[in-house]
Amino acid sequence: MTRTVISSAKKEVIIGFDRPFCVIGERINPTGRKKLAAEMKAGDFSTVESDALAQVAAGAHMLDVNAGIPLADEPKILADTIKLVQSLVDVPLAIDSSIVEALEAGLEVYQGKPLLNSVTGEEERLEVILPMVKKYGCAVVGISNDETGISEDPDVRYEVAKKIVERAADYGIPKEDIVIDPLVMPIGALGTAGRGALSLIRRLREELKVNTTCGASNVSFGLPNRHQLNQAFLAMAAGAGMTSAILNPLHEPEMVGLLGADVINGVDKDCTTWIRKFREPAAETEDGRGARGGRGERRRRRVA
Amino acid sequence: MTRTVISSAKKEVIIGFDRPFCVIGERINPTGRKKLAAEMKAGDFSTVESDALAQVAAGAHMLDVNAGIPLADEPKILADTIKLVQSLVDVPLAIDSSIVEALEAGLEVYQGKPLLNSVTGEEERLEVILPMVKKYGCAVVGISNDETGISEDPDVRYEVAKKIVERAADYGIPKEDIVIDPLVMPIGALGTAGRGALSLIRRLREELKVNTTCGASNVSFGLPNRHQLNQAFLAMAAGAGMTSAILNPLHEPEMVGLLGADVINGVDKDCTTWIRKFREPAAETEDGRGARGGRGERRRRRVA
Repeated sequence: MTRTVISSAKKEVIIGFDRPFCVIGERINPTGRKKLAAEMKAGDFSTVESDALAQVAAGAHMLDVNAGIPLADEPKILADTIKLVQSLVDVPLAIDSSIVEALEAGLEVYQGKPLLNSVTGEEERLEVILPMVKKYGCAVVGISNDETGISEDPDVRYEVAKKIVERAADYGIPKEDIVIDPLVMPIGALGTAGRGALSLIRRLREELKVNTTCGASNVSFGLPNRHQLNQAFLAMAAGAGMTSAILNPLHEPEMVGLLGADVINGVDKDCTTWIRKFREPAAETEDGRGARGGRGERRRRRVA
Repeated sequence: MTRTVISSAKKEVIIGFDRPFCVIGERINPTGRKKLAAEMKAGDFSTVESDALAQVAAGAHMLDVNAGIPLADEPKILADTIKLVQSLVDVPLAIDSSIVEALEAGLEVYQGKPLLNSVTGEEERLEVILPMVKKYGCAVVGISNDETGISEDPDVRYEVAKKIVERAADYGIPKEDIVIDPLVMPIGALGTAGRGALSLIRRLREELKVNTTCGASNVSFGLPNRHQLNQAFLAMAAGAGMTSAILNPLHEPEMVGLLGADVINGVDKDCTTWIRKFREPAAETEDGRGARGGRGERRRRRVA
């Protein structure tokens, strides 16, 4: 029963086969958000603050933090952002950058055991990132591509994931601290992307026995009604064994789909979370105070 | 690649691993619908008519027809209902009864190759129903319970399914004409019901290589927000290999979840159905005629 433990100074999150699906909020990321990029570069973290609070309120179990801004001092901005976010919310963080110095700057200031995002199967990355993972005792996202790029063949991506896990073991990093991203392609461009991802997720869980994550919205790129398509994909992925994903928790279809998947997977014990979220409130009495019975008026179901 | 062919006089439906999920409309069934039961008993088929048309309009690929009314002439009512429904809609039907004489009366009047609903693993049922399936050349739903009842153990249910398929083979009925119902239990009562069903569906597809169906709403019995829970279950079941289900196609969450599952499973070729249903209509020009460009006003996304 693989369990990946991630923590902040105050809170521990376990990603695991027997746990509710772990939602990692994706919003604190200036990629494609010009206004946020400009703010962060200028030292204005007001949007970061509101995004952090809103995502946790919406049910995120962790937050991904990325400061990838062109021509900016990314290591410093990432470290500052992490310090700020950790002062605002208790949930553990994923430290997200493609720049090694930024990852290290984030690790230096982080309180707890973060999820480092990410290493790939490229030799150059493995040799630099895995020693950092070992040094800081963190967990790491392993992305299943290597020097040859992203294979369309799920079996090749499985082998890359296996290589990452094996190489990590050489550094003394247990497979519990590797969360594999199987790389989900846009299904509008590659019709086999969905079934390929589902079969890969199953193999990663059943054969390699690792936790998994992905950027949840990639699958629907270029298609209409993306949220409901992401919702179906996430439920199917959770059914196949995926245990976490990076997504926008403010999008209700995706979150409801994952809560439903938790019920079906038997990891929402006694359906407690589902029932608490969706049960009809007791009807009100005529003087307006809640009580059993009352006028039988049904209030709007709470879905947000 | 297992394909179950069902037909009416005018239309053929294929339930199969490489086909879009087959939605079998459940509404024409007086069980728990007192008004409909009274109407049908009195020879008033107006609700049957409107239910048939509405379900096909909502996207049902087949309709289930049941006339189980206490103290009524079920064989005659079922036969009359089938004749009426076949005169109204082109989609193939499932002939649904627990009474052998009613099944036979339905088969007698049916135009095409129906799906008989159902046989179980009980010896007495197998001996009576399978010869009828052979005689009329129809397909049949095989329910995975037997004299000992419904096992909570998916492996036992798998063995019952296997027995039905083997016994059918003895009568010369190919496994393509058996659609297995793995029996999905209410998850509010049995927390392992979901994972058990998913693993059983996978085995039925990968080992026994049969098509599968189920009553989709049973899983959510007793829980709040049933439609969105059914939606998650259906997407997960389709991801695990389920190829059809009996449900109310007028419920949008379930239908959208299944359309999404078709995309992810790669059986909605080029995402054509998804795009046609959900794409934004072209904006209107100022004189109200549709054209590219226009005022940029977004119309309500079509989801029904």
